[in-house]
Amino acid sequence: MELPESAKEVIRAGAYAHLATIDIDGSPQVTVAWAGLDGEDIVIATLFDQRKLANIRRDPRVTLSFEIDELNEWGLRKYLVVYGTARIVEGGAAEKLQELAHVYLGPEVVFPAMPDPPAGFVTRVTPERLSGIGPWNARG
Amino acid sequence: MELPESAKEVIRAGAYAHLATIDIDGSPQVTVAWAGLDGEDIVIATLFDQRKLANIRRDPRVTLSFEIDELNEWGLRKYLVVYGTARIVEGGAAEKLQELAHVYLGPEVVFPAMPDPPAGFVTRVTPERLSGIGPWNARG
Repeated sequence: MELPESAKEVIRAGAYAHLATIDIDGSPQVTVAWAGLDGEDIVIATLFDQRKLANIRRDPRVTLSFEIDELNEWGLRKYLVVYGTARIVEGGAAEKLQELAHVYLGPEVVFPAMPDPPAGFVTRVTPERLSGIGPWNARG
Repeated sequence: MELPESAKEVIRAGAYAHLATIDIDGSPQVTVAWAGLDGEDIVIATLFDQRKLANIRRDPRVTLSFEIDELNEWGLRKYLVVYGTARIVEGGAAEKLQELAHVYLGPEVVFPAMPDPPAGFVTRVTPERLSGIGPWNARG
């Protein structure tokens, strides 16, 4: 699906992505990461081959949730949930992390702060369905 | 397990819980909710019988993630992940929501703002394992 502009704004503004993958025993595994947009995909970069990547290779169904710094009319926190399918691309992690560091840490920040970072992995999530509380649904 | 004081503080301070349950097709279903402590359990209150409750009745394995308003030495956001087992208790939701509203919305707030709210459901999560970035592990 194409993300509505209201959902793209949440991600561009530097909300943190709670990335839920399916662990080997079928339970939800969660990490919090920087996220960016690349076309209609949501992208996350990882320098090292983490458990979440092994999970995605086994089952690519992931869920991303993002808090929004606003309450709705009932006093409930707005938030965005993106259900999607992930694929892992090798390489490009350091460049993507540098780009995201400018959003999450500041325009001058060098990240990762190490010589010769590993090529790493970029996880691309294609959105399929949205939920949460926000302008993209009736609860917002 | 007994939660370390550092993890309890995150919950008491009013961080939002991203609650991941296992959907009927095995994929992660996520909602964001208020959470509180009751002894060693983490509790979430729900006025209506939502999809997450149906998921928990089918498979009680849940994951809760909470953002912390601090960065670690690498500039990464601290966060708490609690892996646990949930059980649903009928009734008591309005009282629990009122208690949590004082943390999340303010000491004077009346919630839910409706006459005769339904008895609802309280979900109690017994923590089994922690992850994330914080003083309860080496990455914090």
